[in-house]
Amino acid sequence: MTQPPITYEHIKTCKQSGARLGIVHTPHGSFETPVFMPVGTLATVKTMSPQELKEIGAGIILSNTYHLWLRPGEDIVKEAGGLHKFMNWDRPILTDSGGFQVFSLSDLREIDEQGVHFRNHLSGAKLYLTPERSMEIQNALGPDIMMAFDECPPYPAEYDYMKASVERTSRWAERCLKAHGRPNEQGLFGIVQGGEYSDLRKQSAKDLVSLDFPGYAVGGLSVGEPKPIMNQVLEETTPLLPTDKPRYLMGVGSPDSLIDGAIRGIDMFDCVLPTRIARNGTCMTSEGRVVVRNAKYARDFSPLDPNCDCAVCQNYSRAYLRHLIKCDETFGYRLTSYHNLYFLIQLMDDLRQAIREDRTLDFREAFFEQYGFNRPDAKNF
Amino acid sequence: MTQPPITYEHIKTCKQSGARLGIVHTPHGSFETPVFMPVGTLATVKTMSPQELKEIGAGIILSNTYHLWLRPGEDIVKEAGGLHKFMNWDRPILTDSGGFQVFSLSDLREIDEQGVHFRNHLSGAKLYLTPERSMEIQNALGPDIMMAFDECPPYPAEYDYMKASVERTSRWAERCLKAHGRPNEQGLFGIVQGGEYSDLRKQSAKDLVSLDFPGYAVGGLSVGEPKPIMNQVLEETTPLLPTDKPRYLMGVGSPDSLIDGAIRGIDMFDCVLPTRIARNGTCMTSEGRVVVRNAKYARDFSPLDPNCDCAVCQNYSRAYLRHLIKCDETFGYRLTSYHNLYFLIQLMDDLRQAIREDRTLDFREAFFEQYGFNRPDAKNF
Ligand SMILES: [Zn+2]
Ligand SMILES: [Zn+2]
Repeated sequence: MTQPPITYEHIKTCKQSGARLGIVHTPHGSFETPVFMPVGTLATVKTMSPQELKEIGAGIILSNTYHLWLRPGEDIVKEAGGLHKFMNWDRPILTDSGGFQVFSLSDLREIDEQGVHFRNHLSGAKLYLTPERSMEIQNALGPDIMMAFDECPPYPAEYDYMKASVERTSRWAERCLKAHGRPNEQGLFGIVQGGEYSDLRKQSAKDLVSLDFPGYAVGGLSVGEPKPIMNQVLEETTPLLPTDKPRYLMGVGSPDSLIDGAIRGIDMFDCVLPTRIARNGTCMTSEGRVVVRNAKYARDFSPLDPNCDCAVCQNYSRAYLRHLIKCDETFGYRLTSYHNLYFLIQLMDDLRQAIREDRTLDFREAFFEQYGFNRPDAKNF
Repeated sequence: MTQPPITYEHIKTCKQSGARLGIVHTPHGSFETPVFMPVGTLATVKTMSPQELKEIGAGIILSNTYHLWLRPGEDIVKEAGGLHKFMNWDRPILTDSGGFQVFSLSDLREIDEQGVHFRNHLSGAKLYLTPERSMEIQNALGPDIMMAFDECPPYPAEYDYMKASVERTSRWAERCLKAHGRPNEQGLFGIVQGGEYSDLRKQSAKDLVSLDFPGYAVGGLSVGEPKPIMNQVLEETTPLLPTDKPRYLMGVGSPDSLIDGAIRGIDMFDCVLPTRIARNGTCMTSEGRVVVRNAKYARDFSPLDPNCDCAVCQNYSRAYLRHLIKCDETFGYRLTSYHNLYFLIQLMDDLRQAIREDRTLDFREAFFEQYGFNRPDAKNF
């Protein structure tokens, strides 16, 4: 038997919480967890070069199956030699299944047992996505980690709808495993659904764990539910997952949720948040949210984050960033994106150190205090 | 007497043409000529970082007085410690006088002996620019090389209008010299006008040379006149300029015109062309113009320019560039801008080598042939 493409090496669990320190090994190298994955929707992390992503320490990036299927088409990426070669990124890549975009971008969709009929959000043309087609596209794109095609129900969803959806997602997960054409080269993760219903989460976890995926995502979160509900679902769900596989919380990227997720045993996170807000001149800093495009920074010649040692904070002022963003200059978005990604990657680095030293709850408290999450007027994203 | 801020060191003149090899020394270091200067209108060369500009060998960049006056305002740049510090660029910078933008961007303007009344192209508010005000702004911005405030008449212009304009530009040049507040730190170049009228070019050159500027621009070209007229004006004008001062041809950046200008004794060039066309997916390559956004490159996995050793051509395919540009991804414009600037900077490097080896006409012939300028259907920009 050959070594499976994706393996998880557990290093230790924090004595203060469920936070886990680990290493995920992939065909394109290894990365430490907990990890934040920058999102490169269209085979590019918006405004950033692969070299810059390495500079800031990105260990793995995410790309979107749905978007690459439409543009340039998975056949072109395959002809290019796969996504790594196409976009010049030789570290690990994870692709989602396309499911989330089908349910969030298309307002015309029809789900049946076979798959989902929906409309292309660009052209309006009819499209059809099934578990088999999602596997085919992801096999062509060639990421290290693929995601099973699931239904991501909205929040809130009725119990009966959710139960039927969870059961279908389990059947689809089995079909994904069968359709996976490159099991020795790419790892396929299952996705646990069930919304806020404990028994459905249990049912979903049980179904998926029985299929023995090399990793599991907790899906259907960060879709509009309050943060206490997300935290509660995580607390109930991660204990249902095997300890020797990585756990991935999809679509989460605010600093508080990264810490709160890791404390509940999550190893991997992704979100467009840091790059999306960067394009609006909004930044995450050690002292909280800074909307650098605001007029009050016009003559502020201090760095974006006085406690950050990234290339942006070392070389440019808030006044310059504000000027660029006010003028809609690309370089401004490059700089704010770079800093925001650096900030989250550095946060995960600090968090891993806290796990090593068994002080993740202390770390959480200190970070929340300095960032301002404890203030009554705390602003998140 | 202290060393003047800008000096020109003449190395040699090609035996085949008037092309000159030289070095311009400035307070922020020296650069070899003939040189192409990337344009950073708003204190950023669009899409590029200062580090990348160094990587591709940019020896000096240009920035626009008019645009920086409006945004962020020269007072903010001055408070930041000057343009070099504001934008994190420690090599030489040249700023124009604002005159060209006043005449090209504003459709409401009134010229009198004192200066020009016109409207802000962004807000429509009334503005007034004079030689003194232009000097004041450029002194605040702090570039190594400043340009005198001149009138840039349209092409074609009537003889009588041009004669009056040339005479006023000479009087304005004298006022600029008097108003220049930092003559020991910044060099001020004069601008020879006169359109296509030989006697007016002579008059303008004589007036300006008598004022003993440390460098001279040949102005009023690349404003719509045919290339043979530009070349003829250059042939008549550069011999009127001192051999121990650099000569600058403003607004020229197509490969043929750079070579043809250098052959006629021009040392410095600038143009937005390489970055502007890059944002449209159009590239300069050793084999001619490539519109990489075109459908025919969708499955072309070869480099943008097979003869180019820039980081873009080494790491990315035409198919990837096309994909990014079709998706309006910033990183695509970064890559095409990088290559286009590299191409022109490399062209000037090759041209300097041709001057050293007294073969500039042979170089021109070979370059024109390979680029395709000699073909009947040759496309320029
Ligand atoms: Zn920073
Ligand atoms: Zn190139």
